[in-house]
Amino acid sequence: MENWLSKRAYLSPDAPAVQYGSQELTFKELQVAVLALAGKLVNVLDGNQRVGLLTRNNLMGYELILALQQLGRQIVLLNSRLADDELAYQISDANLSQVVVDDQLQYQLAVEQLSFTTIKNTQGKTVEPVVEFDNDQVTTIMYTSGTTGKPKGVLQTFGNHFYSAMGSVLNLGLTDQEAWLAVVPIFHISGLSIMMRSLLYGTKVVLVEKFSATDINHLLLDGQATIMSVVPTMLTALQADLSLGQRYPKHFRTFLVGGGPIDRTDLEHAQASGATIVQSYGMTETASQVVALDPKDAVKKIGSVGKPLFPVSLRIKTNDTSVNAVGRVQLKSPTLTAGYLNQTKKYLASFDEGWFDTGDWGYLDSEGYLYIVGREGDMISSGGENVFPDEVEAVYRALPEVDEVVVLGKKNQEWGQVPVAIIRFKAAASLSSEALRAYGRQHLAHYKVPQTFYLDQGTSFPRTASGKLQRYQLAKVLASFDLLP
Amino acid sequence: MENWLSKRAYLSPDAPAVQYGSQELTFKELQVAVLALAGKLVNVLDGNQRVGLLTRNNLMGYELILALQQLGRQIVLLNSRLADDELAYQISDANLSQVVVDDQLQYQLAVEQLSFTTIKNTQGKTVEPVVEFDNDQVTTIMYTSGTTGKPKGVLQTFGNHFYSAMGSVLNLGLTDQEAWLAVVPIFHISGLSIMMRSLLYGTKVVLVEKFSATDINHLLLDGQATIMSVVPTMLTALQADLSLGQRYPKHFRTFLVGGGPIDRTDLEHAQASGATIVQSYGMTETASQVVALDPKDAVKKIGSVGKPLFPVSLRIKTNDTSVNAVGRVQLKSPTLTAGYLNQTKKYLASFDEGWFDTGDWGYLDSEGYLYIVGREGDMISSGGENVFPDEVEAVYRALPEVDEVVVLGKKNQEWGQVPVAIIRFKAAASLSSEALRAYGRQHLAHYKVPQTFYLDQGTSFPRTASGKLQRYQLAKVLASFDLLP
Repeated sequence: MENWLSKRAYLSPDAPAVQYGSQELTFKELQVAVLALAGKLVNVLDGNQRVGLLTRNNLMGYELILALQQLGRQIVLLNSRLADDELAYQISDANLSQVVVDDQLQYQLAVEQLSFTTIKNTQGKTVEPVVEFDNDQVTTIMYTSGTTGKPKGVLQTFGNHFYSAMGSVLNLGLTDQEAWLAVVPIFHISGLSIMMRSLLYGTKVVLVEKFSATDINHLLLDGQATIMSVVPTMLTALQADLSLGQRYPKHFRTFLVGGGPIDRTDLEHAQASGATIVQSYGMTETASQVVALDPKDAVKKIGSVGKPLFPVSLRIKTNDTSVNAVGRVQLKSPTLTAGYLNQTKKYLASFDEGWFDTGDWGYLDSEGYLYIVGREGDMISSGGENVFPDEVEAVYRALPEVDEVVVLGKKNQEWGQVPVAIIRFKAAASLSSEALRAYGRQHLAHYKVPQTFYLDQGTSFPRTASGKLQRYQLAKVLASFDLLP
Repeated sequence: MENWLSKRAYLSPDAPAVQYGSQELTFKELQVAVLALAGKLVNVLDGNQRVGLLTRNNLMGYELILALQQLGRQIVLLNSRLADDELAYQISDANLSQVVVDDQLQYQLAVEQLSFTTIKNTQGKTVEPVVEFDNDQVTTIMYTSGTTGKPKGVLQTFGNHFYSAMGSVLNLGLTDQEAWLAVVPIFHISGLSIMMRSLLYGTKVVLVEKFSATDINHLLLDGQATIMSVVPTMLTALQADLSLGQRYPKHFRTFLVGGGPIDRTDLEHAQASGATIVQSYGMTETASQVVALDPKDAVKKIGSVGKPLFPVSLRIKTNDTSVNAVGRVQLKSPTLTAGYLNQTKKYLASFDEGWFDTGDWGYLDSEGYLYIVGREGDMISSGGENVFPDEVEAVYRALPEVDEVVVLGKKNQEWGQVPVAIIRFKAAASLSSEALRAYGRQHLAHYKVPQTFYLDQGTSFPRTASGKLQRYQLAKVLASFDLLP
């Protein structure tokens, strides 16, 4: 296929491409800006095919991603929230010699840093952009922040991004007013996929640097966006910020939710505010969503992440043939990563009879809707039985006294592991360990009931950059929590 | 990719799939009906991988196309308007042994005919549909009705249909209310592509057997469709049928026009009736539209067929580097046919440096909009100069007295060929040959002005099944027309 930016600037030069604060660029203007930037980049970049980028969600970072694509470079999108030593690993693994760094950010890195200001102040020259974006060509690399293990450099091809955008459009549709709000990071697949869709669809991206419920609601209520990608905590905060009875305009059509399930209360609040919710499931390895719920089914199928998008096939790997049987979630998809950088064995090992094993556990109901019951590495194996923290947490979260609960496995002489829970109560509320245990026995199999309850005093639980809880990190510091009386 | 019908019936079982008269089927119901039909077909079909089909736009024909796909057969979609000897050629070329024939139609064929009634009355059995629709697999074959030469069997793969649908959705968008009216024949790519889009998009097809301006306007005014594919003559008839000031509902969003340019009067009428017009360009070999005009540009770029769809690349092959230079229209597209049946040499000969030569002549304006100036075989070579009938006809059509005009080449001792015109006047109107010649000299280069004018008395000009004028047929009977005094 032709270079997507060239093609889009040719097809709809005057359509809005990106809005950032008070700035708005059409596709033609964006192309001009991006090519000017590419002309500066060639004067400071060395010959390394791969270039690192550390940026927040701002216009210069946005243009840099596109500019590096125009030069045919592979962009290693580094997570700007990582610590120096985490970055050092990824920089070394990707064999980077240069990293382009947002001036707002400060790092100690062992390689050359090119600041945004340096690049801006460089004399540019005219460059010829690449003619084609080949489907098989790797354009971006992202390290999975992973809930366990060593980060893996996920290779994303133009074909991955193309089919991802096609799968999404066949589920969500496309209007001539489309404007997709991106406050999820552009160094993450959730944000980058919005940028790629914009080129393919010819629609606007409303780029926002920092999540503020008030600011975002202002944009949405003002009709400045039609779709917004969110993680569940964002949705909760947005709903909490709305005044009673305040409704989003009809123009705003969808919250696309990724990174975990939303609960019924948030869903009902969101629907009362006039928004439709598309729950979805995906990962860096699948170039964004591969499974999504039809908004019409949001209430009927609460807890489900939906059905595989049109180009995606899904199976549950289990020997149990009954409906709702839990097994490994496995996929075939043209959006599936071409490999892990330097870890071919690990990549090949993630396939099972040609199916990519997501590492997640789930089941399909009788109508084929997918439910995720546990994430990679979260499963607790207790006396031969499998316990999924998500399930146990959902039961406890239903208690009016409970604000947050995290369930994890603790080593145990007799059972191998046992589930334990860290509970945070709502203000002025409390329950005893005994009461919590009794409640659990009413709703859960015996082996699923946490053996020990710890009291949380307002710790902020460790999460990945994309908002996923890192239970294994919590497990390391479990001893620092007080036992609940 | 998974079998599209299976996937669609799984994704949106309860969404409307097809409406035919008072009948409406959901995707689940359509799948059940199609598999039942497939179960009957296997009991009457022989082992030939290819099956011919002769049908009008009715539900049984619609289901048969899908049923044959479910069985993994290649469907040779024969044009039901062809004469027996034309069909005989295609049946022999495709090496068919059986043709499924609509009971409404009568043919003398040298192969076994399976009537719809025969199939309906056959005892069915349970069949397993094919699991995958492979992108490289040929699923349909259509003979180009061609304006010249021997018909060519165009091989269409699932990949061709998939990319065609993706190119279209990126141009036209997709709403959750979509219903595409198909009165263009389903044995033709214009109609078949509507069926394939329906499976991929999960949207309804409003199938109509016969074009009647009154009936179609009734459907459109009643809000039963959102998009309709038309040829220019349909659009003209629909506008003529509307009462003064009558407007289509907002729900109806687009006429997708193929098969030739529409003139300004029709465009203005259509816009006054609240419809937007998407002029497009495509052919059997490209699995439907590959170039389309943005509705926003309809007036500004009248006469243009637009810009190549996102997955399509286009060039004008000419040595003249100036803007508006006329040359051969050449394409690269993932929708391009995999080949001509039994005519590999002819297929390979249609490529020029890797570009598919459409046989059409055209130019790009300074903003990259494509204008078609002449169709394959139409060009008149007169004394070393090229004359395109379309251009000359457009000039004469602008005269208020002229109802229709056809320009073609006539053999000439001195110039090789000269342009001549057949003119049909509006009721009670007339002009002399001399007046017409004088008018032409004001607007056209000398060599483009028709040397002789013939008077048409209401002949219906020979057209292909898709409405393209067959000038070479007219040239054969030119002597039967009277000279215009």
